[in-house]
Amino acid sequence: MASARPSGEDTLIARYFKPLATDPGAFNLVDDAAILKARGEDVVVTTDAIVEGVHFLKDDPPDTIARKALRVNLSDLAAKGADPAGFVLTLALRSADEAWLTAFARGLGSDAGLFGCPLLGGDTVSTPGPLTVSITAFGRVPEGRMVHRSGAKLGDRVVVTGTIGDAALGLDVLKGGPVAAALADDAVAEAALVGRYRVPQPRNALAKAVREHASAAMDVSDGLAGDLAKLCEASGVSAVIDAPSIPLSAAAATLLARGTLDIEAIVSGGDDYEILCAIPEDNYEAFAQAAGLAGVPVTPIGTVIAAASVPRFLDIEGRDIVLKRLSYSHF
Amino acid sequence: MASARPSGEDTLIARYFKPLATDPGAFNLVDDAAILKARGEDVVVTTDAIVEGVHFLKDDPPDTIARKALRVNLSDLAAKGADPAGFVLTLALRSADEAWLTAFARGLGSDAGLFGCPLLGGDTVSTPGPLTVSITAFGRVPEGRMVHRSGAKLGDRVVVTGTIGDAALGLDVLKGGPVAAALADDAVAEAALVGRYRVPQPRNALAKAVREHASAAMDVSDGLAGDLAKLCEASGVSAVIDAPSIPLSAAAATLLARGTLDIEAIVSGGDDYEILCAIPEDNYEAFAQAAGLAGVPVTPIGTVIAAASVPRFLDIEGRDIVLKRLSYSHF
Repeated sequence: MASARPSGEDTLIARYFKPLATDPGAFNLVDDAAILKARGEDVVVTTDAIVEGVHFLKDDPPDTIARKALRVNLSDLAAKGADPAGFVLTLALRSADEAWLTAFARGLGSDAGLFGCPLLGGDTVSTPGPLTVSITAFGRVPEGRMVHRSGAKLGDRVVVTGTIGDAALGLDVLKGGPVAAALADDAVAEAALVGRYRVPQPRNALAKAVREHASAAMDVSDGLAGDLAKLCEASGVSAVIDAPSIPLSAAAATLLARGTLDIEAIVSGGDDYEILCAIPEDNYEAFAQAAGLAGVPVTPIGTVIAAASVPRFLDIEGRDIVLKRLSYSHF
Repeated sequence: MASARPSGEDTLIARYFKPLATDPGAFNLVDDAAILKARGEDVVVTTDAIVEGVHFLKDDPPDTIARKALRVNLSDLAAKGADPAGFVLTLALRSADEAWLTAFARGLGSDAGLFGCPLLGGDTVSTPGPLTVSITAFGRVPEGRMVHRSGAKLGDRVVVTGTIGDAALGLDVLKGGPVAAALADDAVAEAALVGRYRVPQPRNALAKAVREHASAAMDVSDGLAGDLAKLCEASGVSAVIDAPSIPLSAAAATLLARGTLDIEAIVSGGDDYEILCAIPEDNYEAFAQAAGLAGVPVTPIGTVIAAASVPRFLDIEGRDIVLKRLSYSHF
């Protein structure tokens, strides 16, 4: 065969990313585009980028950077009730470092396999700036069945998966903040929180239950309080949250009890990547049962009420908690 | 309605990008994901990013940066025989500058309308580094009809659209290189070449003809010589190109005649965003006629031959031209 004298870029793609392109629609990454088969379903599209120094730290392990880039997108698919179908990757790199790329591709490939979300294509560009990983992910839902932010109804239960606030605490640990100081004698708790920051646990196992039972859903990426406000605004409702019901990890509960942090740090911290959803009362038992079967912890934390103000967070004595900040914003 | 106290990011999206989200599947950009309807066709997916200082210059007008970001993706869709269906945008910005964003969004919206390719969703993130615009674009083709790089057959005509080399010359003008010096007295020619660098002309009008008549196709983005080598390698063939047949703009032809540049600068310069395709002899007349009706100039420049070496470029006397460089590579 004629040699095309492949460029550094082509070699990089062939060496590191072709093994991940297991879907026939990826054409082994040697074409200019991929084919996504819709199979008569709706294609759900989501896109999220992560930037060094903003969404991850310079010294984070490359495999966790890859996993986080894919998982933040998988989390959106899960919250929309969609099953993963594949993704495309844009990688803006300062240089092609072999060890870094090997570890990055290994992490990415591992998660692509774990979540059934194959690499379909991508673009690799050079940048003089920070490493930036941009992923567009695709999912499938039965026609017309994507779960929206809008749709929450009065009386619905407000439910979250997993635990809230850990990732923000993990970031504080990495930055040597007050959480790091408070946990200095507890390497296990530190590692658990850092793990939550670096490698989110998207709730794709819950997608079907969300699709079948939720009236509205989104993933918690910028902070529970702010994201709940967005869901409520899209639905034309509000909510009242029983703050002591918000599920916390043991580490977060201890720090809260000790006064190292307050509830605002928990509910306005970003990077949770848990699902926030509204479940009609009549569906709750079936939803909780499906979640149990899927192995995903779910916790009711409040109720949808008529639109009046931003969602209220009540303390153990039923008093309003004043939140100065609801969520993280880039601008 | 409850106020969600929208973040800067949400305000930015609502102000600048919501007007572009005309497709019902975009949900006015207030949800976490979009829906792309496949309509029983295959969804073609392509992704390309452009980085300040690499793919465009810091002082390029914001509307042309937006147009280029979308058009490099539209060009891929055209070469695959796909009709545009929509796109998602990831914008990594240092800061939210109102004048810049207004012009950027205006250029993007104008092209989205012009090419029938609505904004479906996106992500806006802050970066300490160079402005980076990453787009994933979607097209539709009848099932199984995407045109591949592979498929070129012995005897096919090698055809390109438009003219080759102008964008690379335009970049040279902007950088004050030899082309700028040679054209110092010709502002019109300079502007034409710079325009080709800043705002590619994707050949979406030709998508149907490519789908119906080409055995293989790709867009020329990294340089004709290198991209032809890739198409040949994917097809297991080679090609012989009659260099004097390569279509040139008047400016490029003049510069070549004067000796300001050689043919290598033309065939290895990037950013053409023209279509390169192989057309079986029996289809050529119908293809040329369809191209004429679509208003897209097409020029046969050579013939597909058996695989032996990289494609040969012959001069006016039939002698091989030695190319030291085939195309642009990031790494």
